[in-house]
Amino acid sequence: MPEPSPHLSPAGPFEADAREAVYRAIFTRRDVRSQFQPRTIPDETLKRLLTAAHHAPSVGFMQPWNFIVIRGDETKARIKRAFSAANAEAAMLFGPERRPLYSALKLDGILEAPVNLCITCDRTRGGPVVLGRTHNFDTDIYSTVCAVQNLWLAARAEGIGVGWVSIFSDEEIGAILGLPKDVKPVAYLCLGFVDELFQEPELAARGWRQRININELIFEDRWGNTPTLKLEP
Amino acid sequence: MPEPSPHLSPAGPFEADAREAVYRAIFTRRDVRSQFQPRTIPDETLKRLLTAAHHAPSVGFMQPWNFIVIRGDETKARIKRAFSAANAEAAMLFGPERRPLYSALKLDGILEAPVNLCITCDRTRGGPVVLGRTHNFDTDIYSTVCAVQNLWLAARAEGIGVGWVSIFSDEEIGAILGLPKDVKPVAYLCLGFVDELFQEPELAARGWRQRININELIFEDRWGNTPTLKLEP
Repeated sequence: MPEPSPHLSPAGPFEADAREAVYRAIFTRRDVRSQFQPRTIPDETLKRLLTAAHHAPSVGFMQPWNFIVIRGDETKARIKRAFSAANAEAAMLFGPERRPLYSALKLDGILEAPVNLCITCDRTRGGPVVLGRTHNFDTDIYSTVCAVQNLWLAARAEGIGVGWVSIFSDEEIGAILGLPKDVKPVAYLCLGFVDELFQEPELAARGWRQRININELIFEDRWGNTPTLKLEP
Repeated sequence: MPEPSPHLSPAGPFEADAREAVYRAIFTRRDVRSQFQPRTIPDETLKRLLTAAHHAPSVGFMQPWNFIVIRGDETKARIKRAFSAANAEAAMLFGPERRPLYSALKLDGILEAPVNLCITCDRTRGGPVVLGRTHNFDTDIYSTVCAVQNLWLAARAEGIGVGWVSIFSDEEIGAILGLPKDVKPVAYLCLGFVDELFQEPELAARGWRQRININELIFEDRWGNTPTLKLEP
């Protein structure tokens, strides 16, 4: 018989409205590049978002994240230059069929978003042996990504759009932000209030790639086994 | 002037109750090992959770994830043996001061949870060049972790607990589940209804590690710069 714990409290399902709110955040969240409004994000709102991120799960309760809030024009301009250089390299990797569409896509909102946020992972936090990280060293990075997604969903509920910019070299971001050598930049995010969002992912709306039918992605008990479960696409 | 798009729709902040529901999911979500109830998770509920995961952001809209739903006792037993072997190795990595507490912690609910779920990342999906993944090849794994966190928060709203078991060798999980060589197991999750949850992370309640004061984790514009922002711990 398990010991009774003073730390446990009742935790059933949410009432229907609250449950729907969680799904609404999940289904209407978008990766924003062009819809940022210039108005300031109040400190109180930013604090709620960072607190949501800090309550992500982390391997061994390691909490490997840091949050660099970037509001200075000069830093943003340096980051934008690093992005532009990397994006020009990226464009050359696409063949002639896709390159014109690639080059026409807007893939960042670094200068337009009033707040940029770099979420990093300190690979040394918690010492050399971390509970749960003994067999996969990268689980600290997984934890950091959970913090990103917490923040992204909280932001949706606050009416704040988030765009994740991933076309950078880590080394350049690290140099601009002065990151120590054991600290990896995991996510570079652009944040700002939005008044409208794409109804479907922007890359789908613009014809780059479409959503996969979920039934093709589910297996039962073993890779390749057709599941008994059938979902609406 | 930006072109008007038929794909955009109004997207302001949520009303207060709905916003609070999103934060409630974020702040009361726990990593569950011992509170699983044996009752069956209805297929309809499982479908909602998987659909929430499938609506995660993904680099280049790559959607690199697959979902292996494991309900068979034999598969669970093999996974449990792989965990137990890895966990015995892990215990030896902790010094004599921490090892007794480590060994007393319950770190999985593989057999007790009615549903196990392996979320994988297909490193080849979308071809050799994926938009946004040109400068960090691991962004596909980041996308997969976002799917995990979507599912985890949706599960909280459904009254379903989730436990992420990370003490495995990828090779063993891959062999048991028959994963192709380019498919990486990112998360092995245990799912079941819960009637109660820890009020704080279980590792904090059990004295393993405490929450870091968030003010120590925030910088402004550059690593090490004290922010103007101050948060309650």
